[in-house]
Order: sequence, then C-alpha cells, then structure tokens
Amino acid sequence: MSWEANVKRAVPYVPGEQPKGSGVIKLNTNENPYPPAPGVDRLFKEFSYQSLRLYPDTGSARITEALAAYYHLDASQVFVGVGSDDVLSMAFLTFFHSGRPILFPDITYSFYDVWADLYGIPYKVCPLDEDFRIVPGQYMQKNGGIIFPNPNAPTGVYETLELIEDILKANPDVVVIVDEAYIDFGGESCIGLISKYDNLLVVQTFSKSRSMAGMRIGFAMGSQKLIRYLNEVKFSVNSYTMNMPSQIIGVEAVRDDSYFKETNAKIMATRERVKGQLKELGFTFPDSKANFIFARHASIPGKKIFEELKARNILVRHWGKDRINQYLRITVGTDEQMDAVVNALREITANA
Amino acid sequence: MSWEANVKRAVPYVPGEQPKGSGVIKLNTNENPYPPAPGVDRLFKEFSYQSLRLYPDTGSARITEALAAYYHLDASQVFVGVGSDDVLSMAFLTFFHSGRPILFPDITYSFYDVWADLYGIPYKVCPLDEDFRIVPGQYMQKNGGIIFPNPNAPTGVYETLELIEDILKANPDVVVIVDEAYIDFGGESCIGLISKYDNLLVVQTFSKSRSMAGMRIGFAMGSQKLIRYLNEVKFSVNSYTMNMPSQIIGVEAVRDDSYFKETNAKIMATRERVKGQLKELGFTFPDSKANFIFARHASIPGKKIFEELKARNILVRHWGKDRINQYLRITVGTDEQMDAVVNALREITANA
Repeated sequence: MSWEANVKRAVPYVPGEQPKGSGVIKLNTNENPYPPAPGVDRLFKEFSYQSLRLYPDTGSARITEALAAYYHLDASQVFVGVGSDDVLSMAFLTFFHSGRPILFPDITYSFYDVWADLYGIPYKVCPLDEDFRIVPGQYMQKNGGIIFPNPNAPTGVYETLELIEDILKANPDVVVIVDEAYIDFGGESCIGLISKYDNLLVVQTFSKSRSMAGMRIGFAMGSQKLIRYLNEVKFSVNSYTMNMPSQIIGVEAVRDDSYFKETNAKIMATRERVKGQLKELGFTFPDSKANFIFARHASIPGKKIFEELKARNILVRHWGKDRINQYLRITVGTDEQMDAVVNALREITANA
Repeated sequence: MSWEANVKRAVPYVPGEQPKGSGVIKLNTNENPYPPAPGVDRLFKEFSYQSLRLYPDTGSARITEALAAYYHLDASQVFVGVGSDDVLSMAFLTFFHSGRPILFPDITYSFYDVWADLYGIPYKVCPLDEDFRIVPGQYMQKNGGIIFPNPNAPTGVYETLELIEDILKANPDVVVIVDEAYIDFGGESCIGLISKYDNLLVVQTFSKSRSMAGMRIGFAMGSQKLIRYLNEVKFSVNSYTMNMPSQIIGVEAVRDDSYFKETNAKIMATRERVKGQLKELGFTFPDSKANFIFARHASIPGKKIFEELKARNILVRHWGKDRINQYLRITVGTDEQMDAVVNALREITANA
C-alpha cells in the first residue's frame, strides 16, 4: 500500500482572485479601498528589526490592551489571532464541544461548515427567509452552539440587537458567536451585551474596516471566562502565532480613531450612492450594512454579468450556489472605482 | 446545564518565560543571540504600508520561491506556514490519517502528542536509548507515520543520514517527517533524500538559525505530491495565514547567505568552547549539534541549578519530567553571555 492511501484529502477553498497586474478594479474580496492609518507607515520605519530574533509576546499584550481600551473592556476579555479565521477556528474547537449540532444560516460565511468538519462538530443549517433574514425561532431548538455573522456575509443583511438578544435569552446553555467582520460599516455592535451574557463571543477583524487584510489580525471579545477557556485551548496547541509586526504595528490601526471613522464614513457614503444607481439599472439587493452590495439583476443572469465585468477588468464575486447564483457581491471601493463599475453595468444592461 | 459544561478544557503549554525587563540573560527558548540579517532593517523601512489593505498572496510566492532557490528545489516542493508549529500541525492533520499509531521518541518536542490528540491520531512513543539516541528498529514496526527532530530537542543529539535512510527504507507506506529546526548548527540536512523518497517531509524554521523567531516563519520541503496534499488541506481550512511582512521581509533572511553562515559559525564556535568549560565543572551532556547544550551535573540536582541561575538573572530551561529532570537546556548565546553563565555555574558548583 502506498503512503498516499493514508493522506487526508481535501478540496481547497478558492478565495477571490488576487491579480498581480495593475489596471484591475478589484472588488472581489471586500478589501478596504483606503490604506491603513498613516501612523502604520511610521511604525514600520521605526520597527526595531533586532527584536525579531526573540519570540513574540505569547499574550500579545500590546495589541490586546489597545483593543481592550478602545472597546472599554478589560484586557482579560480580549483574545487575538492571525485573522478572524484563526480566531473563529479556535472558538469552534473550544466552544462547540458538546456533540450536539451547532446552528448557523444556510447562506453564510463559507468556512463555518469547514471548521465543523475539521473538528468533528455536527451542524444543522437554518434557512434564511426570502429576504435573507434570520428566523429567530430556528435558533431556539436544542443545539450545541450558535454562530452567525452580523451583518451577514455575503448578503450584507444586518440584524438588530433585539434579535440577537432574543437568541441569547433562549440559549443560556451554549456559546453564541456573533461574527462582526463587517459591523463598522453602519451596524451596531453587540459588544454591549457581553456584560449581560457571559456566553456571548463577539469576533471582529482588522481586514475590512481597519484596512489591514495583509497583516492578518482578528480578535474576539467576551466574558473573562470565555476568553480564558479560549486562551487555554489556544496555548495548548500553539504558543506563538501572532508575529511581532502584527502585535506592534497593528496597534496604530486601533489608536487612530478619527482616520478609522473617516474612511468608514466615506465607504458608507459611496455605498449609499451606488445603491441608488444600481436600482436605476434594474438591480435589486438586500439593504447592505457592510462594505459590499449583494445584488441581482431583474433579467440578466449573475454569471453573465460577472463575466462581462471581468472582461472589462472589474473583479467581483459570484458563487454558483443554490439560492444565490443570480447574485453578485460587489465590494464598495473608492468613488472612482464605483463610477467605473456603474458605467460598466450601464453598458452591460443596455446591451443585454 | 451551563454552557461551561460543553467547553473543551485544555492545559495550556507553558513556554519558556519572555521576561520584559532588561538585565536578564535569556537562554531558555533557543533564540539566536544575533539579530536578523541587516537587509531586514532596510526592508522594514521600504515596506509599502499601503499594500496592507489587500489580502496577502495566498500562495506566499515570494518567500516560497526564495526558499526553493536556496535549497535547489522547485517552488512546488516548498510549503510555508506561521512558524514550524503551524507547518507541523498541518502536516499531522494531512499525513497521519490512517488510524494506525504514529511513532515518535519518548523524549522529544513537546507538541507532537498535543497535535496527535487534537486531530485524534493514535500514537506510540519509542524510547531513546541511554545516550538519548534513536533505536532504528523501533521505527520498523507497523505504524501510521513517523516524526522526530534531528537534531533532537531538547537533547541536541544528531542522527546520521544513514540512520534516517534506514528508517525511510523500512517505511515506504507512511509519511516520515524529519523536524530540522536545529539542523543549521552543524548537522547535515536530509533534504538530499527528498528526490529519492517521495514520502519524506523535511521541516525547518526561521526561528533559530535565521534569527527570526518574532516573525513566525516555518517551512516544509518534500516531493511535489506531499506538498500538494499539504496545500490542499491547508487551503481547505484557512486561506490566508502568513502575513505580508513575513512573506516580503522574511526573504532577506534567506538571501543573505554569508550573514547566515557567519552567525551560525559563531554560535557553533561558542558552543564548542562552552562544552569544554562545562565538562571541567563536572557537567555531562550528549554531544549537541544544536544551538543549546542539554547538560546535567554529576552531583547537583537540575532544579537547584536552574533556580540558582535564575536568582542570578540567567534563564535556562528545566523540565520536571521522567528521564530528564536532572538536565538543563542551556541556549548558546553570545560569548559574553556564555562567560556569565560559566562564571555563575562555577560559583554554584563551588558552593554546593
């Protein structure tokens, strides 16, 4: 028998393309069109490269404390990781350990079922309604844990704190994870519920609103108990994950709050403007509170529009999946980029 | 029932302390006493912080290609990760999937059994002989895979390529992983065997010989098949792990070969000098080919020496484990640091 017979086989996830050439308008991975806070540049130039000979701080104290201060929490209520994927994966491993199925929406972030399979966690998907909204009653059945993004991906639909609190009230016996990757684009975070529900874990990322996808920083906030359990599992499998540049330079993306608010406001203004233009061209979409719009055209197939945009050097995202195969997820870029997209869509819809 | 009843509980690994104050001689985590290659400083200053708004290259092409060129391999034979812990953990998940027990030494790197437990992989430890050497016959029983460090940690014992090849010959049906974290301090890498054995995975790190523990870069080399399987599993669980600074700036630690060879030579020269001094003070140790010496004293207990050194602001590593509880693992620092250690040990042994 060959060694190959014993290898775990997996189908790799295909993320949105990262084209290397220039001239492409890249609106396919929900990156921020604006650079990180200018202080980040200064911290790179000041970085003490000699310190790299040492292992990084296992507790990532500097960035953890900066986040705790920003969100008015204690540092013991914050956990950091190498992107929110790393944080979420660790949270699945730690908290979804009952053997009962966990619950998440049918249309949602693509990695939830992957991590469930990885750690042998059974799961059950809860269909969103026709408007892609969560049906809270579905989350009141017996379960081993709950996770959903808010706003949801890839729909952009934002659910209210009242809905989240209803789900929390019905589920004191399991951990509820709210994945707030896109919360800074107009939604209200449920961080305020942490003090009331010690089983609520809120996960956020530097990859979208903080313009730092390249740095790989994600974080979770919750009760001291939750964070302690998460840290114990994390430190039992890997002592050193977040590297020194992330720990030290990432702090500036938290510290410069006016830049953060200004760029988020610009993205939201662009998004609202583009919503109006898309409507005029015959597109419909759930009302997005994220840095993307999940839109379909009344008559032209999603795949066709995707390809026509690609032929014009505009990359957006399209999935050939049930319920959403007519939709395109268009990241909100700069005003100039979005003008180019709208012009291209005007051509495409006029020619169809 | 409380949500806490369903949490996975783990005992966190306690790595060697990372003291924050100065004045401590830190020889407890096998860090390199010399800074990274000077070009690393330049790359930090030149780093385009604006690019951080984008996700990093999922394939980590720049650093993968630099490593492939350095080791005369094709880029398709190199896999990179966030430190060798990340690489090894992914290799356990990918290759040790048969359900049969994997084999590794009884005295070895502390995370092998942790990852085996994490992924539900059965394992069997193979006792080293009295001189802490591998007994090859033990690795010729039926198994689901093999892993050992060479040189071994924490003993520093180096095994020859002949021994490794004997183990490979006896195990064509499983993947054999050689963890070469310390290979650049005087051992000969088994990279040359990759072309002959498509089931051999060689894992190395930037944390020791390349002075970049703070950057978290590890890598694996093997046949194209092995690396493809590893990538497929990695990309099925997380698309973006190695951040941009590691991918771009890490390259310099590979490119500057003369600096690399010079610092490794300095560390080896210091190590050989200190070996003689330790012998004079009544210490015995296996002959180390790593950047540490694993030593015990003829009459003074290991724990006592550890504490006496700590009282003098010198941190080394001691484990209260079977077979090795009289030993100290002393990282090889600069000549000045090692003079301070030898002087302290002279005092301690004289007063005992």
